[in-house]
Amino acid sequence: MPEITIQTASRIEFVDITQQVQRLISDSQMTDGLALVYCPHTTAALTINENDDPDVVADIQRKLAEWAPQHDGYLHREGNSDAHIKASLLGSSQTLIVTKGRLKIGTWQGLFFCEFDGPRRRRVWVQLIPAKESAARSVNNVQ
Amino acid sequence: MPEITIQTASRIEFVDITQQVQRLISDSQMTDGLALVYCPHTTAALTINENDDPDVVADIQRKLAEWAPQHDGYLHREGNSDAHIKASLLGSSQTLIVTKGRLKIGTWQGLFFCEFDGPRRRRVWVQLIPAKESAARSVNNVQ
Amino acid sequence: MPEITIQTASRIEFVDITQQVQRLISDSQMTDGLALVYCPHTTAALTINENDDPDVVADIQRKLAEWAPQHDGYLHREGNSDAHIKASLLGSSQTLIVTKGRLKIGTWQGLFFCEFDGPRRRRVWVQLIPAKESAARSVNNVQ
Repeated sequence: MPEITIQTASRIEFVDITQQVQRLISDSQMTDGLALVYCPHTTAALTINENDDPDVVADIQRKLAEWAPQHDGYLHREGNSDAHIKASLLGSSQTLIVTKGRLKIGTWQGLFFCEFDGPRRRRVWVQLIPAKESAARSVNNVQ
Repeated sequence: MPEITIQTASRIEFVDITQQVQRLISDSQMTDGLALVYCPHTTAALTINENDDPDVVADIQRKLAEWAPQHDGYLHREGNSDAHIKASLLGSSQTLIVTKGRLKIGTWQGLFFCEFDGPRRRRVWVQLIPAKESAARSVNNVQ
Repeated sequence: MPEITIQTASRIEFVDITQQVQRLISDSQMTDGLALVYCPHTTAALTINENDDPDVVADIQRKLAEWAPQHDGYLHREGNSDAHIKASLLGSSQTLIVTKGRLKIGTWQGLFFCEFDGPRRRRVWVQLIPAKESAARSVNNVQ
């Protein structure tokens, strides 16, 4: 299973992993299909948003902190319920289109790993699934 | 890559694109699999919810506006941070089941394109991925 | 279409369905690919989060209720707009990785069906999509 490792440096930090996912795709044989990018952690998430102006990510982080402050009378005793809540809000995975061996994303989009309880060493898994034509092509290779 | 274009008329507007996605599926050869519907814009999103009573969408839009008001001391200077934030909350894609050439969704469900910074001309991409049986069938065609 | 049925007992209730999804995968022939788990209801959702300490789910439910109270001057007259709003926030589907016939999820992760307008009898659909190797293998079987 192709995997990306990320060492975060702060409690809250968004890391643009678009190019790392692209490299995994380039290393594979897949030309057309989808890439399921999956975060196996419960206090982190994945999101797609603008990666040009870092103020966008800062604004997202600020509103998330207003909605789910770090300390808010939570029942869970590990002190990171805010991180769990934000993880469910943004989601544990993102699914991206691959065409001609390249991620097909919007001009201003980047894929971010969202750390909500760092600093930690994190992993992200990438499952590649071919579209019809790729499947047919892979079959030709088999024969 | 099959694509849908949408001309929105307001700053905030949810457009039901279920039938447009269904037409793309009908035009394809795929009978069973999934449809990844992808929004390449960072100030718009996709969501699945009730498309019978338009008050449901109005209620969703109102709460989103309460959580992320248009003006709220954001750092990003383009005046649309609220739209970026809502895009990450609802998500850039939705993945739908296809069986017997039809979208398999709930009785009350519709797929909405969510405009948060219109009016604009927008695009949505659709990647179709076959399930096992379809893959096998496509292989028979190749031989 | 493989299906899970869930009878919820309360208005708000998260049900861990990880093992039920695993059983559907075990019953299938698929070893590597993805499982699209889909909720066809507009007042329920799916999320992935910690399934070890039930306080995590309780904290998530409490914040969701603060953001979208049951009664809040909603336009939709069925009295369950809060449930529709929460459904769009968490999402109608989750996509999971399958390797060697097993769900590949994080150590602390579980997949939850999120009831927001129960008690009701609910369904969840599971679409299995093979990765490249599985597709090739299925082809060999065909020949």
